[in-house]
Amino acid sequence: MGSTMRAAVFYGGGQELRVENLPIPEIANSEILVKVAACGVCHTDLHYIDHGVPTFKKPPLILGHEASGFVVRVGNGVKKFREGDKVLIPAVFTCGSCRNCRAGRENICDEMQMLGNNIDGAYAEYVKVPAKDCSHLPDEIPVDAASIIADAVSTPYHAVKNRAQVKPGDYVVVFGCGGVGINVVQIASAVGASVLAIDIVDYKLDFSKKMGAVATLNTSGMVEKEIIRAIRNTFGMLPDIAFEAIGNPKTIELAYNCLRPGGRLVQIGYTHENVSINAGRLMYREIEIMGSLGCRPVDYPPLIEMVRTGKIKIEPLITHRFKLEEINRAFDTLRKGETLRSIIVFD
Amino acid sequence: MGSTMRAAVFYGGGQELRVENLPIPEIANSEILVKVAACGVCHTDLHYIDHGVPTFKKPPLILGHEASGFVVRVGNGVKKFREGDKVLIPAVFTCGSCRNCRAGRENICDEMQMLGNNIDGAYAEYVKVPAKDCSHLPDEIPVDAASIIADAVSTPYHAVKNRAQVKPGDYVVVFGCGGVGINVVQIASAVGASVLAIDIVDYKLDFSKKMGAVATLNTSGMVEKEIIRAIRNTFGMLPDIAFEAIGNPKTIELAYNCLRPGGRLVQIGYTHENVSINAGRLMYREIEIMGSLGCRPVDYPPLIEMVRTGKIKIEPLITHRFKLEEINRAFDTLRKGETLRSIIVFD
Amino acid sequence: MGSTMRAAVFYGGGQELRVENLPIPEIANSEILVKVAACGVCHTDLHYIDHGVPTFKKPPLILGHEASGFVVRVGNGVKKFREGDKVLIPAVFTCGSCRNCRAGRENICDEMQMLGNNIDGAYAEYVKVPAKDCSHLPDEIPVDAASIIADAVSTPYHAVKNRAQVKPGDYVVVFGCGGVGINVVQIASAVGASVLAIDIVDYKLDFSKKMGAVATLNTSGMVEKEIIRAIRNTFGMLPDIAFEAIGNPKTIELAYNCLRPGGRLVQIGYTHENVSINAGRLMYREIEIMGSLGCRPVDYPPLIEMVRTGKIKIEPLITHRFKLEEINRAFDTLRKGETLRSIIVFD
Amino acid sequence: MGSTMRAAVFYGGGQELRVENLPIPEIANSEILVKVAACGVCHTDLHYIDHGVPTFKKPPLILGHEASGFVVRVGNGVKKFREGDKVLIPAVFTCGSCRNCRAGRENICDEMQMLGNNIDGAYAEYVKVPAKDCSHLPDEIPVDAASIIADAVSTPYHAVKNRAQVKPGDYVVVFGCGGVGINVVQIASAVGASVLAIDIVDYKLDFSKKMGAVATLNTSGMVEKEIIRAIRNTFGMLPDIAFEAIGNPKTIELAYNCLRPGGRLVQIGYTHENVSINAGRLMYREIEIMGSLGCRPVDYPPLIEMVRTGKIKIEPLITHRFKLEEINRAFDTLRKGETLRSIIVFD
Repeated sequence: MGSTMRAAVFYGGGQELRVENLPIPEIANSEILVKVAACGVCHTDLHYIDHGVPTFKKPPLILGHEASGFVVRVGNGVKKFREGDKVLIPAVFTCGSCRNCRAGRENICDEMQMLGNNIDGAYAEYVKVPAKDCSHLPDEIPVDAASIIADAVSTPYHAVKNRAQVKPGDYVVVFGCGGVGINVVQIASAVGASVLAIDIVDYKLDFSKKMGAVATLNTSGMVEKEIIRAIRNTFGMLPDIAFEAIGNPKTIELAYNCLRPGGRLVQIGYTHENVSINAGRLMYREIEIMGSLGCRPVDYPPLIEMVRTGKIKIEPLITHRFKLEEINRAFDTLRKGETLRSIIVFD
Repeated sequence: MGSTMRAAVFYGGGQELRVENLPIPEIANSEILVKVAACGVCHTDLHYIDHGVPTFKKPPLILGHEASGFVVRVGNGVKKFREGDKVLIPAVFTCGSCRNCRAGRENICDEMQMLGNNIDGAYAEYVKVPAKDCSHLPDEIPVDAASIIADAVSTPYHAVKNRAQVKPGDYVVVFGCGGVGINVVQIASAVGASVLAIDIVDYKLDFSKKMGAVATLNTSGMVEKEIIRAIRNTFGMLPDIAFEAIGNPKTIELAYNCLRPGGRLVQIGYTHENVSINAGRLMYREIEIMGSLGCRPVDYPPLIEMVRTGKIKIEPLITHRFKLEEINRAFDTLRKGETLRSIIVFD
Repeated sequence: MGSTMRAAVFYGGGQELRVENLPIPEIANSEILVKVAACGVCHTDLHYIDHGVPTFKKPPLILGHEASGFVVRVGNGVKKFREGDKVLIPAVFTCGSCRNCRAGRENICDEMQMLGNNIDGAYAEYVKVPAKDCSHLPDEIPVDAASIIADAVSTPYHAVKNRAQVKPGDYVVVFGCGGVGINVVQIASAVGASVLAIDIVDYKLDFSKKMGAVATLNTSGMVEKEIIRAIRNTFGMLPDIAFEAIGNPKTIELAYNCLRPGGRLVQIGYTHENVSINAGRLMYREIEIMGSLGCRPVDYPPLIEMVRTGKIKIEPLITHRFKLEEINRAFDTLRKGETLRSIIVFD
Repeated sequence: MGSTMRAAVFYGGGQELRVENLPIPEIANSEILVKVAACGVCHTDLHYIDHGVPTFKKPPLILGHEASGFVVRVGNGVKKFREGDKVLIPAVFTCGSCRNCRAGRENICDEMQMLGNNIDGAYAEYVKVPAKDCSHLPDEIPVDAASIIADAVSTPYHAVKNRAQVKPGDYVVVFGCGGVGINVVQIASAVGASVLAIDIVDYKLDFSKKMGAVATLNTSGMVEKEIIRAIRNTFGMLPDIAFEAIGNPKTIELAYNCLRPGGRLVQIGYTHENVSINAGRLMYREIEIMGSLGCRPVDYPPLIEMVRTGKIKIEPLITHRFKLEEINRAFDTLRKGETLRSIIVFD
């Protein structure tokens, strides 16, 4: 281990990432230095690069927030890790002392720091991170594939477990079966629900079946009334829970309108637009609408346990592997919608 | 007790109620006949009379759904009551066997029957009702005042206890301090919350203080930004919970926008209109929106206990008392906004 | 269908059941008559026969409380079923109007009626039961195997879902892998937990692995300290949840002592004896202890859905099938511990 | 402010505290130095002094864990406080990063540090403490009286809110109305429950009435059966929730035996002894038993808000005030049972 490392640096919207040599970061007492094994390629990064969504740290900034690797240096105050430990790095770090953190809601920490956004990320050979939020990875999980747990799998896990609170035997509809939605399908199924996967792309629906959906629905060309009728026919009743994992106002409204009295809509997809909902239906049916954001650090160990025991599968989700030098090509593939989840792998 | 009774009959929208002689109803095995002591005068009735909202049973129909009295006849299958018992009649009767009923959510029963809407109501000397949903009233509570527990107090009780799940010390905002909102103020205060009461009428705000509000805000002439700033200044932070008890889309949107991350909006007021909410805020702040409807029969005994012990006050809420023959005048008073809660009293 | 039927009648403790001809029961308005397809053979029956546990209805009484079949007659007031419907009969019927029923806790109904205990049961060609608590069975589930859902599967379902509230990735220990315990293993696994199955019989542990356990432990000859160490070694920490499905005071105490701070013990096995627990541990570790009884009718449809989709398996649980005439032999097999679950099948 | 301070030092069991001059502590980056205004005198201290219960830090040790005061020095890393701030110091400090802390259960932190036990306490003019767990005190609360919030009030608040989850209108029994029990009475009442206070000392019961109990029961000379009958007569039914705030095995067993089906026992009092409970009752009635320990830092702000608004009263609880030099006399008064709560006040 020398004093420099290769890293993909973001210099601002509309520009390709530049792979450069940078100094290996110095760690503080509470931090660890991780030799990155792999880092996922996510739509969030594409929003910075293509759509001008600003990062909290001004460029130049190393992107990448879905990473795993091995601990190579340990801060003086860190007891949790030792050199050589296999480690999963969460996408977001928390302050641990604001009200939300202390009430068991660290995922909406008032002072959260996102990797590859507030601080330098993991499209790099090495990354330094606070130790307290990282998790140990067991032998049974391949270190590179594990990277995608940090966002593509953890965000759905939180949505299913803590927000929707899916119960065994519940009827669940998932709108959108991309990188996040497919894992809502997988995890809701893994906790005993009957999941109807909805999308407009057949191969995503086929894949949803493999990940546990009991039924699928391609809504291309259908109007809302037809879609709701099809959902009702699938279950013999209206669903208990709907997840929206796209971020499309029309789909959010549809997800709201398809619920049974007492049903719950969990919003995972992001949109900056407004949605329009019927207030009378809200009251008369006691519908519940709630957002879901990220995942608490405390949820990673049970989630990793589910991956370890095979209840949640990660290998089938990784459709492409790229080297750091190929990172801009990895984003091209994502732009074209040719991939479910790509990861950047390091030697 | 003869064979006929006096009752106020609804013959359709746009017409005054007619006070007539009708046969005293025959009861079935599972029913009781109640000699009505008092029946509240509610905006819901006004919606039938003035605004053409259709009733489920076609007119002629006896209105009135907020009643108390004494049991005078008991069906053969009824064990819960005896002649002479003092009784509170709930506004809504449940099937007891649909999924919602059995999951502890009788207030959104699939087959609910509303008094004075699906079946003849209590603007009458006698009313017959299913025994299973009625509650005993203790000596300490005056039988006529007790009537308003059946809707004006029970609806807020459910909203505070079961939907908002207000916790002691929570910061709570109540938008609208009319007949329902004032009891949200009262009950949220009675369970330990700090309540900010919001309205545009000063005397309602003064009364809110008497019912437990720790602060009030008259928002006349204020824009949303100013209102949210005033709310934040009251508590030193944004509120945990907001109740909307008006049914105005603009207020609902305001109630949504004033919440802290992780906050909850409980919608009690009715409107047939749509509301427009920011979907990004929903997700990033994990806001929760939920409707609240009526009250479960199983919640009446603890609610009545709170009235018995004085933790919830009902006498100050009753501003007017009318005789059955004066019922159309009672509605006039309601139309003019000159009353908080009126009741029709029988001898 | 004639006017008489064959049935196995219980005449009191210490006597074999007598298979006799009896009149087919007359149904009331709210009831259905079911042609029994199968009825499970349960330890509870053995307690009446061998151990003098009294039945609520005095003998003669038809035993059998775990049954499925086809509807052959429908009471006038019943809308939920039609002749020919395939039906699952729950072990216990509820009043639907006591406080526990209405608060969503029908399984601890104040007035519960158990099939084959308070009323004549299903070791008979026909049985009459209240319609409201019965559930429809889908085509995908064989009607005879379905019988065991009614107790052997439903009791664990309630314990896992409603009492323990097992979360995905939880570490769970199940003490006792007999007819009930094996399904706690199965269902806790099916909702995403990592289950350690504990017993003193190897073949039960082997079977537990097939039903989803990630690890097993044969505690024969081990003392408490060794067992707790072995549990800790399995998970790398103490468990979140322990189920006791035996009804042995020593095992209950062990299950209590093995929990992590904040852990939960769910007691399913019955014993009339007292258990002795450390009160300081209760307080300092905020341990929770709670009983679990039966299953609510409202939980049957989602449970049946899990069987339909194969998330819960029932066929492997049925090790023996007997004809009604062989019923005393079926109990012999149960006495000798040679069976996991036997059912009595009718043509 | 010089370089030394007066402090009451514990040198080991069986010895009086010695009031000595000690250096004022140096603070670390994450700490604040507090000029103590008052510190409560608690039975826990008496256990060290009289009963040989060992402290985690070996003597010499400054005792005292229930304190309030003013911030006089602020560590470099502390943003939450400034010099001059009025502050409440919690009895226990947490690590903020173990699983329990992060799951919203800081009160059972794996690495908790108790003031005046693991670290030097607040029977001293100055005390240094971690800033993150301290709370601001508003103008409306007198700084010296505020001290008792830190244990005598916070422990019951947690027990009522988070463990028992008392609901408005619940029937609650509190066994033992000493310094902790009296506040269970007060807080359960303040959240809307009807509380029956039970003790064997009349003046404690009289005081319970003033703090909100709707009924009291002196059980001197009564056997269990009589006590349970008296409880049932008070409410007309068995209670929903029982608190035991004594730590007596017999009372714990009584509290368990008096509950309704589905009821909950919350254990607050400490005993090292075992309790013997009926396991069949646990199962058939689905009783819940759980311990309660301390209070989470995140619960202090809403608790302080309840004190600020007068929903919880603290002044009447403080029966005696002593100077630091009189501390051994303060413990004498406690030994004799002549006090509800004493505090040591500083100028």
